[in-house]
Amino acid sequence: MGGRGRDDRGGDRNDRSPAEADRASPVFSPSAELPPLDPDEEEALRRIGQRWRSEAPGRSPHLRKLPLDPALGRYHPPPAPRRLGRLTRVEMFQPDEPGELVTTSSAAVPASRTGRALARARRILLGPPLSSAALLQERMRKLVALPVLSSDLLSSVAYGPEAMVAVLALAGAAALNLTLPIAAGLVVLMIAVGLSYRQTIRAYPHGAGSYLVASYNLGARPGLAAAAGLMLDYILTVAVSVSAGVHAVTSALPGLAPLAVPLGLLVIAVLLAGNLRGVRAAGNLFALPTYAFLVAVALLILVGMVRAATRGFAPVPPPPVPVVEGLSLLLVLRAFSSGATSMTGIEAVSNATPSFRPVEWRNARTTLTWMLSLLVVLFVGLIVLIHLNGLVPRADETILSQLAHRTFPTGPWYALIQAATATILLLAANTAFNGFPRLLFFMARGGHAPRLFLHLGDRLGFSNGIVFLAGTAALILVAFRGETALLIPLYAVGVFLAFTLSQLGMVVHWRRARGAHWRKRLAVNAVGAVLSALVLATSAVTKFAGGAWVVVVAVPLIVLVSLRIHRHYARMDRALRLAPPPATPRFGWEAEERPQEVRHLVVVPVDRFNLAVLRVLAYAASLGPPVLAVHISPEEEEADRFREQWEAWGDHVRLEVLVSPYRAVIPPLAHYLQALHTLRPDLALTVIVPELVLRRRWHRLLHHRTAPRLRRALREVPGIVITSVPLHVPC
Amino acid sequence: MGGRGRDDRGGDRNDRSPAEADRASPVFSPSAELPPLDPDEEEALRRIGQRWRSEAPGRSPHLRKLPLDPALGRYHPPPAPRRLGRLTRVEMFQPDEPGELVTTSSAAVPASRTGRALARARRILLGPPLSSAALLQERMRKLVALPVLSSDLLSSVAYGPEAMVAVLALAGAAALNLTLPIAAGLVVLMIAVGLSYRQTIRAYPHGAGSYLVASYNLGARPGLAAAAGLMLDYILTVAVSVSAGVHAVTSALPGLAPLAVPLGLLVIAVLLAGNLRGVRAAGNLFALPTYAFLVAVALLILVGMVRAATRGFAPVPPPPVPVVEGLSLLLVLRAFSSGATSMTGIEAVSNATPSFRPVEWRNARTTLTWMLSLLVVLFVGLIVLIHLNGLVPRADETILSQLAHRTFPTGPWYALIQAATATILLLAANTAFNGFPRLLFFMARGGHAPRLFLHLGDRLGFSNGIVFLAGTAALILVAFRGETALLIPLYAVGVFLAFTLSQLGMVVHWRRARGAHWRKRLAVNAVGAVLSALVLATSAVTKFAGGAWVVVVAVPLIVLVSLRIHRHYARMDRALRLAPPPATPRFGWEAEERPQEVRHLVVVPVDRFNLAVLRVLAYAASLGPPVLAVHISPEEEEADRFREQWEAWGDHVRLEVLVSPYRAVIPPLAHYLQALHTLRPDLALTVIVPELVLRRRWHRLLHHRTAPRLRRALREVPGIVITSVPLHVPC
Repeated sequence: MGGRGRDDRGGDRNDRSPAEADRASPVFSPSAELPPLDPDEEEALRRIGQRWRSEAPGRSPHLRKLPLDPALGRYHPPPAPRRLGRLTRVEMFQPDEPGELVTTSSAAVPASRTGRALARARRILLGPPLSSAALLQERMRKLVALPVLSSDLLSSVAYGPEAMVAVLALAGAAALNLTLPIAAGLVVLMIAVGLSYRQTIRAYPHGAGSYLVASYNLGARPGLAAAAGLMLDYILTVAVSVSAGVHAVTSALPGLAPLAVPLGLLVIAVLLAGNLRGVRAAGNLFALPTYAFLVAVALLILVGMVRAATRGFAPVPPPPVPVVEGLSLLLVLRAFSSGATSMTGIEAVSNATPSFRPVEWRNARTTLTWMLSLLVVLFVGLIVLIHLNGLVPRADETILSQLAHRTFPTGPWYALIQAATATILLLAANTAFNGFPRLLFFMARGGHAPRLFLHLGDRLGFSNGIVFLAGTAALILVAFRGETALLIPLYAVGVFLAFTLSQLGMVVHWRRARGAHWRKRLAVNAVGAVLSALVLATSAVTKFAGGAWVVVVAVPLIVLVSLRIHRHYARMDRALRLAPPPATPRFGWEAEERPQEVRHLVVVPVDRFNLAVLRVLAYAASLGPPVLAVHISPEEEEADRFREQWEAWGDHVRLEVLVSPYRAVIPPLAHYLQALHTLRPDLALTVIVPELVLRRRWHRLLHHRTAPRLRRALREVPGIVITSVPLHVPC
Repeated sequence: MGGRGRDDRGGDRNDRSPAEADRASPVFSPSAELPPLDPDEEEALRRIGQRWRSEAPGRSPHLRKLPLDPALGRYHPPPAPRRLGRLTRVEMFQPDEPGELVTTSSAAVPASRTGRALARARRILLGPPLSSAALLQERMRKLVALPVLSSDLLSSVAYGPEAMVAVLALAGAAALNLTLPIAAGLVVLMIAVGLSYRQTIRAYPHGAGSYLVASYNLGARPGLAAAAGLMLDYILTVAVSVSAGVHAVTSALPGLAPLAVPLGLLVIAVLLAGNLRGVRAAGNLFALPTYAFLVAVALLILVGMVRAATRGFAPVPPPPVPVVEGLSLLLVLRAFSSGATSMTGIEAVSNATPSFRPVEWRNARTTLTWMLSLLVVLFVGLIVLIHLNGLVPRADETILSQLAHRTFPTGPWYALIQAATATILLLAANTAFNGFPRLLFFMARGGHAPRLFLHLGDRLGFSNGIVFLAGTAALILVAFRGETALLIPLYAVGVFLAFTLSQLGMVVHWRRARGAHWRKRLAVNAVGAVLSALVLATSAVTKFAGGAWVVVVAVPLIVLVSLRIHRHYARMDRALRLAPPPATPRFGWEAEERPQEVRHLVVVPVDRFNLAVLRVLAYAASLGPPVLAVHISPEEEEADRFREQWEAWGDHVRLEVLVSPYRAVIPPLAHYLQALHTLRPDLALTVIVPELVLRRRWHRLLHHRTAPRLRRALREVPGIVITSVPLHVPC
């Protein structure tokens, strides 16, 4: 139809251009679930409205005839009994302007008993719900954002240097001399990626994640590939860091080893609850361990450096190590890409930009700069200390632990450093709980993820995304029985895919946008892109058989699912998009948006006479439109008997009897209604069925439950409306 | 309320007195699901109808205004494409008298694709559906009824005598001399029970099962106890006989032993399918093996007697057996009750009486007489031969097998007898498939079991009962991993409970009804009752620890559940029973059965403007009653934006905006509607919600699915009708 084809881009209206995204402020708002109409739609709405004539002749306008004052401001529900016998008056609605009520938090609690119990439990666990007005207060201060968003990045420092040295050590002790040059290369990469993200945050102040940047500049598929890489990485981060943390605990207390999986689930549950409590609460909860780790490692580096200075910075020669393979370019690349795991987590700030206090981009950029500086200082410090002390990886002790032993041979410091390291490894998962839901929010806003990820939960966090992440990670934890070591090779592939695509996106951005110093900026991003791509290619190839193939399979799969989701939403939006009414009337009432075109026939299936059926008949007859009753009879005799009853009642409604000698009830009724619809597609058929409301669930087994069955059978038939009249029977 | 209290017995209208039950004919008819109104109700219906005034002033009567000819006789759906490209025209409805259509078997097939596929599969497996008119043809001839109903009884002969001799042998070889006297006692019991059932069938020609007889004469609880005993026994019969049959097969072919459970399930599936095909088909299928067993055992007895005659009927002395315990009255009682298992299955005819060809009771009685005669002849013959041959139970071979070996030392006869025995043991389950669903039918008719057991399936069998039996037996088989030997002690307790109660019921019946020879008849039933009670007590006590406690626990439990079911139905019937309208109007429209008393308010929840919402608004406005639109907004800004759109559209419907700062949607809406209902309980609130019809199931994850969630939230609120307007979006 002309009216539809014209608006093909309707479905994509959420894929906003950066300029459009800039207009919509704030980004993480509850209104994201209800996007505004575009100007075309507004115009169409006006024109549709002009052709609406709702008053049938002889009826008074609805506006005046409304039989009650709908402003319920004066309504007070009866006081709710409390335990200990006291009564409290529960306010549900407060009148605002005329025709507008503001609901209180009590109205957000379901009325059912289980609903109330769940709400109470949630309140105890997560705190009272927060009003949308508190959104600004829930934004992150820089000093809260730093620990929340950097725990993943900083924890990487605990294993990144060791991973690099371990690869080099394969070529013997001599190869370890390459440590410093490779580390220098990594620092260049870190600074390039960091600067690049700084630029991205400034250029896209309303969300600078790889998904957005790659989508805007490279297209939907690259954007989704970046998102898929990040999603996988976030999920793996939670599963691996939790199981590694639990492993550290069970190594110390072997008695707990059989409880590894329940303990892991407990940790995930704590992270889940902490993050569901909201950004601020989670920040307060998880800030201390991050700062403790920071202080511990800084102290380690400081003391180590002082000790080295007393030796005149003379390096201790490393012990001889067996040569497993020759020194080659591939080995160097592998060492480089292993060391690059130190910088996973650097992307955390980008999607979280809109969660900072205003001015958002400035605060986000400052935080990123701090994080980057900390990363470089810690990484360089550790690498230098490892080199100076001639440490090589050992099977029984991590390099960090060796370093701590050497630096603090006595005193409680060693134990403290180890405890801080274990905690930060556990808390790396917390960054994922911040990044993942925001990534899904942006995907959902673009129509690439289910819209439920747009929803701001009770505590103004993206609770659906948080729960989804916890659920997926818990599933992986259980599936691998807590032994997630197998998953470590999968790391870094996804995140470097995202880095590469986001930098490439920025290169395109600068070429298009130009502006001051664009060449310099483009160069920074280009260097970052090349180095990231190098790490991506190296780790994908070298770890392919070890597990990276999972990422290579999963990323296109996630992209595919996202595209299917997008296609569905796009079609749906296109089908439901407001468009000016066509010149020729459409076929069938279901396509009609003006009341004067809708004609009704009400159909009431009647099985036998009882009060329920009589009430449904009364309801139907009082509505206004003509009513047809249909009785399905298994036998001629029963049909005759029923017809006699119908006449005894007074034959007030036209009755049609269907004799169903095969004793089926629902299918003949559905076929009959379908036949009615085929004969008169212009009629709106409203089927009214009584629906018993039973107090006990098991009582459902005792009834035919015609209403839900009929609803299911009639789903596919167009043009049939189903009305359930509830019958509350006191039993 | 006076109108309700008066009709307290309304819920019990299905507990018909025998005289009432006699009037309703035939018993197993599809109309059993729709029982007729009683005279009080008919009168109330007439009086309610007189007060019905459906035409609002100014509207034309509904009868004439109906916008279509509802006789769809001329309607032909478009020809359905078939494979191989041919097209056939499917007739769905055939016009009968005016205002009446008869549906064809095509109309009994659901329209959905899965529904059609299931119907096709069922057709292939079970045959085409049978019309209610074929009910009489599906009745059993005596020669079909005999094998169907006697396989359980006859199979009992294969183990009953052995069980008796095995108990006696515990007291040494000398005790075996008691075999013949005890057997004589058992024959008296058999004849007493048999005669008693003959009398019952005559007295209650429309169903003579223990449940009915005990209910009529002793009350609901004894009736239910008898029913519970029988139900347990039927389920155990299927589980035990199938696993015993499979055990016989796996003993012969040990390779199949690991497949015991799947094989058992396969046998249950075959029995299920056979019985779902209908009584006649199952009879034809399962008659041959029963007759084969009959011939085989008769031949065994004949040849054995001839051989004994050549020896001048001199008994062979039994081999010495170790004396385990002394001969005592308890031992004799145990032998007696063990031998009594030979007569389990004798009750099969009683509930099946209405399934015989007319004259039902006469045919049923004749069949019972045949069965009884066969039982006595086979039992006596086998016992006498066992005695004459001096056989004692051996661990490695059954007595029947020993007897066959002795009688037919050579030739194929031994193998044939063994095969026939194995088959009849398997087929004993088939009698349960006949008895169990009919028992549940009678229980459901009395309101003591879910009403779905009243339903006559596609093939005019009680398919719900058949499926339930197969399912329960399969569960037990799987739970015990095919090792159901543990369940054998549970046998006989349930069935002798039923025997005892039914005979007691008959004693009461004769005392009440009197009639010709009532003293003699009472005596027969009294003897039967005493002997049955003896067996019941003996087996319950001696087998208590061995498993009979399960029955002792389960029977009261089943009785309790049945009483709860009955209470629910009784309350429901009382609540919905037609009663003359009260003088004072009732409170709230939901209790109203006259249209002139119902006033409407239509509420349309609106989330945003799109074509779907506009169509729902058009549907609502065109219905007639006043309309109120409600918008739930998460923020003030969004509320203002929406109100602007509403005015741009033309403000055709009164709008109420609820600002929900806690971002909940469903609970505030539900509370709002509840508040409306509380303020104006006289208004029928109809909430109209669009319901997206999605083509793919996984697409549901992509939508909020407000309609079902709202329906669930509003279930408990009285007076609120929910209308779902389907929206078929082509994606």
